[in-house]
Amino acid sequence: MNKTKGAYEKLHDLSRHIAILSSVYQLLEWDQETYLPSDAIFHRARQIETMASLIHKEKTSARFAKALQELIDIETGEILNTNLSSAQIAALKEWRRDHLKTVKLPSSFVKTFAQTTSQATHIWAIAKKTNDFALFAPYLEKIVNLCRKKADFLGFKEHPYDALLDLFEPEMTTSFLIPLFSKLRISLSELLKMIGTQPIPSDSFLHGEFSHARQMRFAEELLKAMGFQRSSSRLDESNHPFCNGIAPKDTRMTTRINPDALMNNIFAVLHEGGHGLYHQDLPEDQYGSPLAESISLGIDESQSRFWETLIGHSLPFWKCFYPKLQKEFSEKLSGIHINEFYRAINIVRPSFIRIHADEVTYSLHIILRFELEKALIEGQLKVKDVPQMWNERMRDYLGISPQDNSIGCLQDIHWSMGAFGYFPTYTLGNLYAAQIFEAFERAYSGWRERVETGDLLFIRNWLASEIHRYGRQFTPHQLIVKVTGKALSEAPYIHYLHRKFTALYHLE
Amino acid sequence: MNKTKGAYEKLHDLSRHIAILSSVYQLLEWDQETYLPSDAIFHRARQIETMASLIHKEKTSARFAKALQELIDIETGEILNTNLSSAQIAALKEWRRDHLKTVKLPSSFVKTFAQTTSQATHIWAIAKKTNDFALFAPYLEKIVNLCRKKADFLGFKEHPYDALLDLFEPEMTTSFLIPLFSKLRISLSELLKMIGTQPIPSDSFLHGEFSHARQMRFAEELLKAMGFQRSSSRLDESNHPFCNGIAPKDTRMTTRINPDALMNNIFAVLHEGGHGLYHQDLPEDQYGSPLAESISLGIDESQSRFWETLIGHSLPFWKCFYPKLQKEFSEKLSGIHINEFYRAINIVRPSFIRIHADEVTYSLHIILRFELEKALIEGQLKVKDVPQMWNERMRDYLGISPQDNSIGCLQDIHWSMGAFGYFPTYTLGNLYAAQIFEAFERAYSGWRERVETGDLLFIRNWLASEIHRYGRQFTPHQLIVKVTGKALSEAPYIHYLHRKFTALYHLE
Repeated sequence: MNKTKGAYEKLHDLSRHIAILSSVYQLLEWDQETYLPSDAIFHRARQIETMASLIHKEKTSARFAKALQELIDIETGEILNTNLSSAQIAALKEWRRDHLKTVKLPSSFVKTFAQTTSQATHIWAIAKKTNDFALFAPYLEKIVNLCRKKADFLGFKEHPYDALLDLFEPEMTTSFLIPLFSKLRISLSELLKMIGTQPIPSDSFLHGEFSHARQMRFAEELLKAMGFQRSSSRLDESNHPFCNGIAPKDTRMTTRINPDALMNNIFAVLHEGGHGLYHQDLPEDQYGSPLAESISLGIDESQSRFWETLIGHSLPFWKCFYPKLQKEFSEKLSGIHINEFYRAINIVRPSFIRIHADEVTYSLHIILRFELEKALIEGQLKVKDVPQMWNERMRDYLGISPQDNSIGCLQDIHWSMGAFGYFPTYTLGNLYAAQIFEAFERAYSGWRERVETGDLLFIRNWLASEIHRYGRQFTPHQLIVKVTGKALSEAPYIHYLHRKFTALYHLE
Repeated sequence: MNKTKGAYEKLHDLSRHIAILSSVYQLLEWDQETYLPSDAIFHRARQIETMASLIHKEKTSARFAKALQELIDIETGEILNTNLSSAQIAALKEWRRDHLKTVKLPSSFVKTFAQTTSQATHIWAIAKKTNDFALFAPYLEKIVNLCRKKADFLGFKEHPYDALLDLFEPEMTTSFLIPLFSKLRISLSELLKMIGTQPIPSDSFLHGEFSHARQMRFAEELLKAMGFQRSSSRLDESNHPFCNGIAPKDTRMTTRINPDALMNNIFAVLHEGGHGLYHQDLPEDQYGSPLAESISLGIDESQSRFWETLIGHSLPFWKCFYPKLQKEFSEKLSGIHINEFYRAINIVRPSFIRIHADEVTYSLHIILRFELEKALIEGQLKVKDVPQMWNERMRDYLGISPQDNSIGCLQDIHWSMGAFGYFPTYTLGNLYAAQIFEAFERAYSGWRERVETGDLLFIRNWLASEIHRYGRQFTPHQLIVKVTGKALSEAPYIHYLHRKFTALYHLE
C-alpha cells in the first residue's frame, strides 16, 4: 500500500511540476491579451516559445513515462496496481490518454504544425481584413493536409476526423455527430421558420451610449452574484473575452466593453463566469492531476452556456437584475418594461457572424462548419471550393448568403490555428447545457422563485457538486449519463427552445 | 574569426535563454505586486520557486561553464581569444563575475539563505507592526551569521563587508566608503544645522483630497514628457512603487496614489521613470548579455534620483509643469504661487522614516545603516544592541530619536531579506547623480530654459548616449570617470545642495 501510494504520488508530483510550468505559460497568455505593451509582442513570443518547449520536454521525458508505466500499462491501458481508488484509476487513464497524444506526434511534426499555423494566423488576419480568400487558401490547404497527417499519427478506428474531435472532446465520433446534428438542424430550421413569421421586436434601447465605468461596475456585480470573490478571481478587459484559470484561487476572466451595445459585456461576463466557476470548483488538493482539470471543451462550454443562456437569457434572472440594470442606465431603460427588455435580448434573426448568433441560429453556424471540416478532411471538398459551399449552406440553413468572405468563411480564426474538430464542441456545449438544465429543473423545481430574489449560489453549488468537483474522473459521456440519466441527445435543447420561443412569440 | 564569433554567439545564446527565463520570472513578480488575487499567493510562491530553480540550474550548468571557459579563463580572468571587441571583452568579464558569484555559493547554502530570509521577512513584518524587536532579533542574528558566511564563500581582500557590497555595487569597498561617508556626513550635518535656523515653509496645500483619476492622469503625462510610449511601457499601481524592466520594449513602472498627499505619486513616478529610461535605452540587440544590463544598483539609482531630485525638485521643471498641476488641482493650488510650491516640495526637516526623507537628510539615514551593518558584520555590534545604537546615531546625526523601533531600526525590509550591503547604493546613487549632473550642466548650460518649455527629451537622450547604451561595458568607477572626468566624490552633491538650499533659504 505504501509503495502504491508512493508511485501514484510520484507521478502526481511530476505532473504537478508540469502544471506549475503550464500555469506560468498561462500567465504569459493572459498578460498578452490584457496588459502587454504592444511593442513587446516579439519578446513575448520568445517567452511563450521557451516555456512551451520546457513543458513539452517534461511531458515527453523518460522519467514521466516510467512513473506512468509503473501504474498503468501505456501500451494496453491495463491498470497495474489493484490498490487504487476508482478516482485514481480514472486519473491514470486520463494521464495515459494525454501521454499517448503527446508522444504519438513526432517533434518535427509538432514544430512544422506550429510554424505553419503561426504564419497562417497572420495571413488569415490580413485575408479577412482585405476579403481575400485566395491569399489564405494555400495556407488552409497546408493546414488541412497537416490535420490529416495529425489524424494518421494519432490513429482512429472509423474516420480521420474522429482523431481530431477526440483532441477537444474525448471519445466523440463523427458517426455520433452526423445523425445528432442532422436531427438538430431539421428541428432548428423548423423553429426558425415559425419564428420568422412573427415581427421582430425592437431592441433600439440596448444601443446608444453606455458608460464604460457603469458597464464594468455592473459586470462586477454579476460576478459577485455568481459567487466570485475578488480574493481569488479578477475581471479585466481584452479584445476577445476569455477565461483563463491560471492556478487554484487565480481565475481570470475578461470582458469587452462596447459603449454602443449594452448586452455584449453582460453576456460575455455570464459566459466567462460560467467557465470561471468550473475552474474555481475543481478540487484544489488534486491540482496537477486530471482530477483537477475540466473534462472537455464541450462540457466546459456547457457551463458557460448554462449561465449565459439558460440562466442569463431567462425571465426569472432579469426579474432580479433588470431593476438594477435600469437604475444603472436609467436614461435609456427607465421607460422600458421588463417584458420588452426580455423580448429584445431574445431576438431570433439569421445573421452572418457566428459569435453574434442567437440561441436558435447559433448551432446552424456550427453544423455548417462541421460539414465543411469533415468534407475537407475526407478530401471530398477542395479548399478553393470552400467559399461556394459556405455560401450555399448559409442560404440553405439560414436563408441568407454573405456578400463577401470576410463575413463568411474567413470570419473565424480556428482553421488558421489548425483547430479542426473544435467547432462541434460549441454546439455540444449547448446540448449538454440544456440536458443538464433538465436535471437541474428536476432537482430545483422552484428555481425560478429563488433566482428572482437574486439567489444564484444554489446553482453554482449544484453544478459544483454534480460536475465540477469530479475533474476528469468521468468521460463526457459518463458524466452526462450520471447527471441526467441518459446519453446526450438534441431533444432537451429543442424542447427548451420550443417551450421558450413558443411563449415568447405566441406561436401555435 | 568565424570560430570566434561562433563561440561568443554560443555563449550569448545560452545567456539569452537564461534572460528569457528570468524575464518570465519578472512577470510573475510584477503580477504579484499589481494584479494577483490575494488568495493565489500560495500558488504564486510555487511558480516563483519553480522558475528560480530552473534559472539557477541553467546558470550553473556545465555547458554554460564550458561555453564561458572557451573565451575567458574562469580561474584567472585571462581572455582566451584575441579577436574580440573591447565591448565583448568587457561582457566576458561580467559574465565571469556573475558566474563566479553563482558557483561560489553552495546550493545547500543558497537554500538555507532563502528559507531563513523568507521566514525572516514574515517575522519582520509582524515585529514592525507590533513594535517587537525581540521577536525579530533571533532572525537578524541568523541572517548576520549567514551574511558573514556568504562573504567567506564569495571571498574578499580586506573586509568581509566588501564581498556583500560587491553584490550590489561591483568593486565598491568599505575602505572607500568610510572616508567618503564621513566627509559627507560632516557636510550634511553642517548644512542641516544652517537650514535648521530658518522657519519651515508651509506645505499644507499639498495635503487634502486629490482625485485618484487626476493623479493617475498627471502621472501618465509626466511619463509621456520623459519620452515613454504606451506601446513599450506601462504604469500601474502597487503598495510600493517599483520599476520592473521585464523585457525589451516592456518596461513596467508602478506608483502609489495617496489621495491625501499629492507629491508622493509624482516623485515616485519621476523616480521609477528614471529607472525605466535606463531600461528602455539599453541596447536591444545585446539582449541576454551583460551589455544590455544596468551596471549596478548605485548607477541605476543615480538615474532615478537624477529625474526625481535634480530635475524633478528643480524650479525650471516646475515652471513648465506647475501650471499644469495647478489646472488639474485648481481647488487646492490656484492661489499658491510657484515659489511657495517650490519651497514646499523642498522642505528640509529631520524625520524618522528614510523613504520620506528630503535631499539633505536622506544620506544621513543611509550612513547610519552602513555603520550598523559594518559593525554587525565585523562582530563589533551585537544584534541586541542594534536599537540602542540606532537611536543614538539618529540623535547624533539628525537630532531626533524615535520613540519606538517600528519607526526606528525595524522600519526597513532589507535586513530581513538578507540584503546587507544594499543600503549604501542609495547614497551612492545620489552622489553619482550629482556628479553626472555637473557633466550634464557642462554639456547643456542652457538646460534650464529648455526644461522650462517642457522639453525633457534632450536629457533622456544625453543619459542614454552617455550611460544607458553601454550596459555593463564599464564598471561603475570606469563609467563615472568616463562621463565626469573624475572619480566619485561627495563634492558635487554637497556643492549642489549648498547652492540650492542657500538660495532657497536665503542662507549666508
